[in-house]
Amino acid sequence: MAVPPSAQSLIAEHEALYSQRAAGIKQSAVRDVFELSLDASLVSLAGGNPYLQSLPLKKLGDIAQRIITEQGPVALQYGSGLGTEELRLQILEVMAAEGIDNVSVDDVVITNGSQSAQDMACKVFCDPGDTVLCEDPTYVGALNTFEAYQVKAAAVLTDAQGIVPEALAERIQSLRAAGERVKFLYTIPNFNNPSGITLAAHRRQQVVEICRAAGVLILEDNPYGMLRYDGEPAPTLRSLDPENVIYMGSFSKILSPGLRIGWAAVPSHLFRRFYLAGEAVALCPPTLNQMIISAYLREHDWKGQIESYCQLYASRRDAMFAALEKYLPAGISYTRPEGGFFIWLTLPEGIDTYQLLQEGVQAGVIFIPGAAFSPGNPLSHTLRLAFCAVDEDTIDEGVKRLSKLLERKLEVLSN
Amino acid sequence: MAVPPSAQSLIAEHEALYSQRAAGIKQSAVRDVFELSLDASLVSLAGGNPYLQSLPLKKLGDIAQRIITEQGPVALQYGSGLGTEELRLQILEVMAAEGIDNVSVDDVVITNGSQSAQDMACKVFCDPGDTVLCEDPTYVGALNTFEAYQVKAAAVLTDAQGIVPEALAERIQSLRAAGERVKFLYTIPNFNNPSGITLAAHRRQQVVEICRAAGVLILEDNPYGMLRYDGEPAPTLRSLDPENVIYMGSFSKILSPGLRIGWAAVPSHLFRRFYLAGEAVALCPPTLNQMIISAYLREHDWKGQIESYCQLYASRRDAMFAALEKYLPAGISYTRPEGGFFIWLTLPEGIDTYQLLQEGVQAGVIFIPGAAFSPGNPLSHTLRLAFCAVDEDTIDEGVKRLSKLLERKLEVLSN
Repeated sequence: MAVPPSAQSLIAEHEALYSQRAAGIKQSAVRDVFELSLDASLVSLAGGNPYLQSLPLKKLGDIAQRIITEQGPVALQYGSGLGTEELRLQILEVMAAEGIDNVSVDDVVITNGSQSAQDMACKVFCDPGDTVLCEDPTYVGALNTFEAYQVKAAAVLTDAQGIVPEALAERIQSLRAAGERVKFLYTIPNFNNPSGITLAAHRRQQVVEICRAAGVLILEDNPYGMLRYDGEPAPTLRSLDPENVIYMGSFSKILSPGLRIGWAAVPSHLFRRFYLAGEAVALCPPTLNQMIISAYLREHDWKGQIESYCQLYASRRDAMFAALEKYLPAGISYTRPEGGFFIWLTLPEGIDTYQLLQEGVQAGVIFIPGAAFSPGNPLSHTLRLAFCAVDEDTIDEGVKRLSKLLERKLEVLSN
Repeated sequence: MAVPPSAQSLIAEHEALYSQRAAGIKQSAVRDVFELSLDASLVSLAGGNPYLQSLPLKKLGDIAQRIITEQGPVALQYGSGLGTEELRLQILEVMAAEGIDNVSVDDVVITNGSQSAQDMACKVFCDPGDTVLCEDPTYVGALNTFEAYQVKAAAVLTDAQGIVPEALAERIQSLRAAGERVKFLYTIPNFNNPSGITLAAHRRQQVVEICRAAGVLILEDNPYGMLRYDGEPAPTLRSLDPENVIYMGSFSKILSPGLRIGWAAVPSHLFRRFYLAGEAVALCPPTLNQMIISAYLREHDWKGQIESYCQLYASRRDAMFAALEKYLPAGISYTRPEGGFFIWLTLPEGIDTYQLLQEGVQAGVIFIPGAAFSPGNPLSHTLRLAFCAVDEDTIDEGVKRLSKLLERKLEVLSN
């Protein structure tokens, strides 16, 4: 037998074992900031954590106790890879509250948060080198998934009303002309994370038709749809084209992210392979967590809970608008979301918000640098503020600190 | 704009969107049988479900209630992608109970069951067309993961004492000589699922040295290690070579599979990419589930619970041995596991156990056909029996029904 290699040479040998995709897997910048946000002296306008203090915790605790005590051998056991039938049926009601009434329970699969539905979609549809379309900026977790599957993320032009339909059609055409294999459009039509922008109602039919005509699937990620504080709801893409849209929902923002329960509603003809892809990753979603959510939906006024969340977050958003109005120096623009958790700031081009974050830590305020949300990272002079997780006074203080910092930056820039 | 395609032509177009790997994703045969096992008139010797009735359900219910009521905003919130620090520290104690005392908390990541650790390992180390080594038979979930990553699973010769070291060395050499890229050995050294076979203590050092010398990583999957009913524990591969072994543990068999919490202990130099691969799939493991397990480990005599599980399962295993001895016709061999959940039967070659399962349903007994556990599916005349999930009388009845069926099959075969 050969002499076993030393630790040092073993480490070098192991480098050769990595897959090609492993090179593309990187830590989310949101996570970097997550560590920072544990410092209580800093005002964090970074995290998109829902405000769970307003949940009926006593009731949820009682529910969990009852389920484990009375149905423990079911709740703590393996379950179906699809998820429990009760929750899948209830999810139809949740989707109906967003105007989606054309889904069969047979087309719903429960996932480990909607992050895992994105992973499944890439697994089923994307080979290395394939292209997916997305907004710029878009959800950092989706960009991480695309990188992990060695998929190229191509940005589609957006404005204050979301994706520009003509630009979408042109982008698909030019990518195809260049030989790219375009698989799907990943979009967050309502209160995009991080931009806060909503795809205008009158553009939705166009977006759906363009994708359908081009043979490009749509992945509609809609965790914030029910958290609307002004204006009129627009129809979901799923309701406009049930055959070409995979809809991803989540309990993370309307109930609890720590339970890690989301779902996908998949066109019937795509369903089987989609759910098997998930089963190979995690066997089944956690049974107890599904049963807790089922009991909560069954026994609690969950729509009333969402309404009270809307009041809470609307007040915080308005506090952030007021603080931005009051403190922010001229030359900085920001979005005016009608719902969701986030406002997106665009600074003059000379400012790098990664560096700004370091200075923000000194100044006692943190946020997420915009480049994290951008395929190819060009948006270095942008940043995301979250208004969901802290109260109005803290929001005021945080925006004040940020604004002072920005004033100094702008002065330096103008000298 | 082009005329949007009809539903029919859309479905045809969507076929072209699937990834190459999607073709390799298939439903686990274990899951097929899972549906069957819900029929109460059948005796199921199929499922590897732990017997949760003997857990302290009242105490677990109280724990969950207390955590949600008192710490709900933490328990229901996003957590670290690594898992909670408390549970990661406790996992060091759990591993110490199996003789593993050389792991740093910084090298432990909590996963959605150990299924998801297998997914992470493939993601990080395997490109399509790479080869991994495994036992034959081996865990069906691992085979599904290998297929999903378009990885070739190459069987290593085993006997009643597990992997044959000389055969392992030769297999690596011949695969390399044929130009194959061999990345890791996936092995269940203790009470293999499905065979029940344990890698003999005296072979372990050899297996570890062969892999290290060849630059082949080891994935040690050890969900059953503490469920030993006879004989002496053998050292884990991880404790024999901390630098070349990724160890996968799970709470599924010693506490609850429905919580979906497992872990991986990864050599330090491989850790970062390994855990980032998992984060891209599901962001973080469910926080509540981790906190419930932490409280259980902190407040309950979990080692005593495992001891009482060992007594329960030992009695069921012995009941299955007795029934096999009493009823089984001549010409059928079976393994004699010292722990775990499964016994593996080898029938005369003319019998196809997929077909036998259909007849078993008629006869009122179900099991898992062996081909499900075999890379390339050649083991069609084998089957897996589980003794973990049902009581002694039911085991007796199930083996009796199966034996009658086999008697008839053997008669037909001999005519």
